[in-house]
Amino acid sequence: MTELAAVKAALKTQAVETPSWAYGNSGTRFKVFAQQGVPRDPWEKLDDAGKVHEFTGVAPTVALHIPWDKVEDYAALAKHAEERGVKLGAINSNTFQDDDYKLGSVCHPDASVRRKAVDHLLECVDIMDATGSRDLKLWFADGTNYPGQDDIRERQDRLAQALAEVYGRLGDDQRMLLEYKFFEPAFYATDVPDWGTAYAHCLKLGPKAQVVVDTGHHAPGTNIEFIVATLLREGKLGAFDFNSRFYADDDLMVGSADPFQLFRIMYEVVRGGGFTPEVAFMLDQCHNIEAKIPAIIRSVMNVQEATAKALLVDREALAAAQRDGDVLEANAVVMDAYNTDVRPLLREVREEMGLDPEPLQAYRRSGWASKIVEERVGGEQAGWGA
Amino acid sequence: MTELAAVKAALKTQAVETPSWAYGNSGTRFKVFAQQGVPRDPWEKLDDAGKVHEFTGVAPTVALHIPWDKVEDYAALAKHAEERGVKLGAINSNTFQDDDYKLGSVCHPDASVRRKAVDHLLECVDIMDATGSRDLKLWFADGTNYPGQDDIRERQDRLAQALAEVYGRLGDDQRMLLEYKFFEPAFYATDVPDWGTAYAHCLKLGPKAQVVVDTGHHAPGTNIEFIVATLLREGKLGAFDFNSRFYADDDLMVGSADPFQLFRIMYEVVRGGGFTPEVAFMLDQCHNIEAKIPAIIRSVMNVQEATAKALLVDREALAAAQRDGDVLEANAVVMDAYNTDVRPLLREVREEMGLDPEPLQAYRRSGWASKIVEERVGGEQAGWGA
Amino acid sequence: MTELAAVKAALKTQAVETPSWAYGNSGTRFKVFAQQGVPRDPWEKLDDAGKVHEFTGVAPTVALHIPWDKVEDYAALAKHAEERGVKLGAINSNTFQDDDYKLGSVCHPDASVRRKAVDHLLECVDIMDATGSRDLKLWFADGTNYPGQDDIRERQDRLAQALAEVYGRLGDDQRMLLEYKFFEPAFYATDVPDWGTAYAHCLKLGPKAQVVVDTGHHAPGTNIEFIVATLLREGKLGAFDFNSRFYADDDLMVGSADPFQLFRIMYEVVRGGGFTPEVAFMLDQCHNIEAKIPAIIRSVMNVQEATAKALLVDREALAAAQRDGDVLEANAVVMDAYNTDVRPLLREVREEMGLDPEPLQAYRRSGWASKIVEERVGGEQAGWGA
Amino acid sequence: MTELAAVKAALKTQAVETPSWAYGNSGTRFKVFAQQGVPRDPWEKLDDAGKVHEFTGVAPTVALHIPWDKVEDYAALAKHAEERGVKLGAINSNTFQDDDYKLGSVCHPDASVRRKAVDHLLECVDIMDATGSRDLKLWFADGTNYPGQDDIRERQDRLAQALAEVYGRLGDDQRMLLEYKFFEPAFYATDVPDWGTAYAHCLKLGPKAQVVVDTGHHAPGTNIEFIVATLLREGKLGAFDFNSRFYADDDLMVGSADPFQLFRIMYEVVRGGGFTPEVAFMLDQCHNIEAKIPAIIRSVMNVQEATAKALLVDREALAAAQRDGDVLEANAVVMDAYNTDVRPLLREVREEMGLDPEPLQAYRRSGWASKIVEERVGGEQAGWGA
Repeated sequence: MTELAAVKAALKTQAVETPSWAYGNSGTRFKVFAQQGVPRDPWEKLDDAGKVHEFTGVAPTVALHIPWDKVEDYAALAKHAEERGVKLGAINSNTFQDDDYKLGSVCHPDASVRRKAVDHLLECVDIMDATGSRDLKLWFADGTNYPGQDDIRERQDRLAQALAEVYGRLGDDQRMLLEYKFFEPAFYATDVPDWGTAYAHCLKLGPKAQVVVDTGHHAPGTNIEFIVATLLREGKLGAFDFNSRFYADDDLMVGSADPFQLFRIMYEVVRGGGFTPEVAFMLDQCHNIEAKIPAIIRSVMNVQEATAKALLVDREALAAAQRDGDVLEANAVVMDAYNTDVRPLLREVREEMGLDPEPLQAYRRSGWASKIVEERVGGEQAGWGA
Repeated sequence: MTELAAVKAALKTQAVETPSWAYGNSGTRFKVFAQQGVPRDPWEKLDDAGKVHEFTGVAPTVALHIPWDKVEDYAALAKHAEERGVKLGAINSNTFQDDDYKLGSVCHPDASVRRKAVDHLLECVDIMDATGSRDLKLWFADGTNYPGQDDIRERQDRLAQALAEVYGRLGDDQRMLLEYKFFEPAFYATDVPDWGTAYAHCLKLGPKAQVVVDTGHHAPGTNIEFIVATLLREGKLGAFDFNSRFYADDDLMVGSADPFQLFRIMYEVVRGGGFTPEVAFMLDQCHNIEAKIPAIIRSVMNVQEATAKALLVDREALAAAQRDGDVLEANAVVMDAYNTDVRPLLREVREEMGLDPEPLQAYRRSGWASKIVEERVGGEQAGWGA
Repeated sequence: MTELAAVKAALKTQAVETPSWAYGNSGTRFKVFAQQGVPRDPWEKLDDAGKVHEFTGVAPTVALHIPWDKVEDYAALAKHAEERGVKLGAINSNTFQDDDYKLGSVCHPDASVRRKAVDHLLECVDIMDATGSRDLKLWFADGTNYPGQDDIRERQDRLAQALAEVYGRLGDDQRMLLEYKFFEPAFYATDVPDWGTAYAHCLKLGPKAQVVVDTGHHAPGTNIEFIVATLLREGKLGAFDFNSRFYADDDLMVGSADPFQLFRIMYEVVRGGGFTPEVAFMLDQCHNIEAKIPAIIRSVMNVQEATAKALLVDREALAAAQRDGDVLEANAVVMDAYNTDVRPLLREVREEMGLDPEPLQAYRRSGWASKIVEERVGGEQAGWGA
Repeated sequence: MTELAAVKAALKTQAVETPSWAYGNSGTRFKVFAQQGVPRDPWEKLDDAGKVHEFTGVAPTVALHIPWDKVEDYAALAKHAEERGVKLGAINSNTFQDDDYKLGSVCHPDASVRRKAVDHLLECVDIMDATGSRDLKLWFADGTNYPGQDDIRERQDRLAQALAEVYGRLGDDQRMLLEYKFFEPAFYATDVPDWGTAYAHCLKLGPKAQVVVDTGHHAPGTNIEFIVATLLREGKLGAFDFNSRFYADDDLMVGSADPFQLFRIMYEVVRGGGFTPEVAFMLDQCHNIEAKIPAIIRSVMNVQEATAKALLVDREALAAAQRDGDVLEANAVVMDAYNTDVRPLLREVREEMGLDPEPLQAYRRSGWASKIVEERVGGEQAGWGA
């Protein structure tokens, strides 16, 4: 029997980073439905992120996206965050929204566009120096839509060169997190389409380069927990971008499409020694039609629940059944943990942390939702373009 | 041996409808890259469509999208089209871009939103009366993102009711074409997700309701030509929306991702008696990164090439091999046609039609591309939002 | 609040049919791993099925597969079953293992092979008369491996003809259940590949023809509960073949790959009025590497747990949230039921039914497993070939 | 313009290894349909392979599968092959058909089973010494069917250990080729499921360990040519196992499902310097319903046609268009080569090689098919089990 106290202690140390952009508007190529009360600048995003942490207790940092969250004075931004109980987290680069990037950024056939993209990445490291962020998260929209459009292999050479230059610029305590994605926005060949490609690049770069697993970025049927276990075994898992998908990169609330998969992923994290600050747990979601702050709170809670279940797996019993080749019993040990209703346990954890046991209800009672609808009038709502 | 003359004659009668919106800007949720020379209104889209028909000879009609192509005077628009050698084609409704449609249109839980959506569809029939269009093409973005979000079955009831009302409004020579789509923008349950659902609704509505097969709207691995053969057998195939996909609804140029599949589809069309005006061949594509008019010309040519190959299948030899259960020979008969280089044949067809044998080169020489870049300055470029 | 008593009452009426072939050996094309104690004939299969019902209380019938379960005297077989507390259930036809069926059965290009296949189906109805079975379950392995191999459309004509003949032979209280399957063993075009095809055939045949949903027979990403809801709405859902899949038709224990999906399916069953004897709940699984009887017990329990959760959904609260367009709340209502640990409830249900609350432990204690290993020595173990 | 003479010269040097097992019977888990004239032992398989090479001129080697092709005297087998104009090729291990391997081989939880598996692999190297084979091809069916069944990470440790031991046994001119597979026969987690895993292991083992790309072993939608380009860039592409798939690992004739994909793969091979003896081109197919020898001849021809088209790509024009960012032109250059009918060119190549220009017709005229049907009577036909 796993000791419940240890499980609780672990759950109290959990940290889920929320992304600044999830507080703003998002949508599909068909339509972005604006919501009332959406932040109009990075400061207001941090206000909202502060609320998520206030009610969950396990969302202490906020990822920034450059240039969407560009400000004059990052020290002031960091101070603003701290006043709301949170800290600035990873810096996310953006090399996909400038008109120059139509055919790619760091993989673009034209050297001047590559230069521009790399300069942006270097600027992001400058910002990390200012914010004290540890992680530079790199997602490249680079790829091609048609066979022959560009040379697949040369694009890898260009990518390697860009990464090496940025890696060289990293400080001692800074890391580069490389994200892969199966497809979208490129529809024929994506330049970092799978964990193998990200891993191969990170391996050559060195220990400060790590792979990011975005749970929505895989081919249909991919066993994500296998990738997690493998990257942990290789010492190359740097972070998660959590979200849910039924089809493509749907960016739904984590745990909403396949909670059993999330549990299996968290089990491999726990089992592989990944439940440490070296593996960053981040959300990367789009709340296109649902209220954003409650959706983020719910997502954080979903991660907590999956983690709790993973921590509850009776690993001794599991190891014994596995050793015996008892397929059904080994599976049953895992299912026992999964089938446990961990919500009472998490309510206890929250109460012991001095929190309301029901974060969503507490948030609703707080009046924040109506307050921001009233106050955030005028100006331009934040979205993927701003 | 198939008679070449008959093949040529058939190819000369081919008609591929181009969509007005393909001449405008489009993109992904990450970015719309604007292009120079893009039309700013329906009139200019028709100018471009006229060029596509001028050089291919087989793109005589243009589909409109309401409200994107709304004008005061449809008779004037029709006249403008005719002066450019083309006619107005299908009317495409839009029930996904109004803020009210966040949770659906004809399937929305709120009756007033459903009313608004149905009114829009009825207005589209009014426009058909004005333009003389035969086909109302219906694609519904309706669906849900989360389990439980709405009642799957009630949404079908609402859908059925809306379709019935619109069906009742159709004139004697008008048709309703119902499109299905696997997913996007809905990420959990789409209200018309597959041909079976579209077929079941059309069957109840009556003979003027027909199914549209969009080649990009299927689950991975779906055998589209089987669906085509089945719908033709049921008398329920009304139209194609042609495009290509590697992953999701990529909307690439038809024939660019899997030309063999396109050939197989065209073979079933020919074999099943679908090469008639009763089955409309339409493009529905997004030229996000490539030049739009040449991409559309290329797409039309790709459909022609697939059709030519399908017409070249030696159906007597094929039937004989199939009868004999000679798997390899039957497959070889089909592959022989597919492996034929039909470009010389199509050059002949074009010359016999009084066209330049090389549409793309002729278009390039025409100077149209630079002319529109020069002239279309100022105003707002057409895109999915306008 | 759902009344618990009603939920319990419903759970006590549940009936899950187990398939005779799941008690025998099975495997992949690479290897069939034989297990000790496996039945050697239909009589021993019924002995095992009796044990499953003895310990679960909700597996009262056993599906037969012809010719695997062919016997001289079906009355004696029925009596044997009854003595073990179970009854004979659906008759499953087999038109895929005779050498003549290499290129198909009822869709074969050769009329004499089609005749043979139809005769087999008619013989199955004769057997139904003898066993008193209500349902004839038809799964056709028919299809083609290569484009052109046979005429897709003619195969539909042949299929329709065969089904019509068999339908005509059905007695007043007999039904024909038509199963569809995405692929395998046919690799290019399957003759009944999706619910739409099965539905279209059943619609023409009449009310005694119903569709079977095998949970493992869909394209990646298919929303199965949508199909369930739609078929129930159309009055055409006849049965389920339950099992689990991660990739293709993996035939794993139901509920083991995606328990949340199973819950969503059961919710649509309950919501759509499908929790009646008109919709047969059957298992169709292969226990290739795990002990067979405990795996079947576990599968039955998994169906129970999903059903219990589905019954626990607070439908009033759900309807209210759906009506309000409250995406998060509607989803939360569904998730609340799913996150409930229903095992205590099911233990109560079993105790009230006079059963051991823990079927697997009770089965293990019963000594049956070692008894059959000892006694079933010699003879030929049952498998897919016998 | 590519020089035609160089293209022809390259095509004449092509070598496609045929697999001994493709000459025997194969099937699905539902049924193996036996064919007349199928070889009964390795000697007869080589007789058939000799015919394939006799008529194609580019199938000079034959892969063996141990223990299916185990003989007393490998020198005699090699001599037998040479007398038929072919040589013995890669040795393929089999660690999936012994009863001990139910839960895995080199990854099995029990050390004694792992020992047995490794001993088999070492025996395969002994056979390589005897046959003079360069390549040991390793495909492991290892994996698990249920979450929790075994420890994913420990299985990697066991795999690494086994590979290291075998690697150490390789001679100076011997290589180990590690194959990955998305799924089947394992349905939850496969131990070498993707190229990244194979690559990571090969990287640690050293230069004699290389990755095998089986074209049927990927998730839906995977861009295989990207993997080819990447592995060539990393110097880690050792071989291809060619076949076709529509759905899973269908093992159809290469080029029959997606000839455009095969062309794109061959283009990356040519472009990446992979058209050398260091990259072995092997078939790995199952001719379940079609005549085996003609199917293999056809497959070899399909590889030739794809290669010819890849060689015909005007790489200068392509590079220029890519440099200019001309998406449509770059794609057109590639499509021009693909749309070329290369069958006349290949007929010329064959005539220049002293072969009949039409291998399939020549084979049919040779009388071999009827000869083996007459002569190979009695005995046991070769299949996957023997």
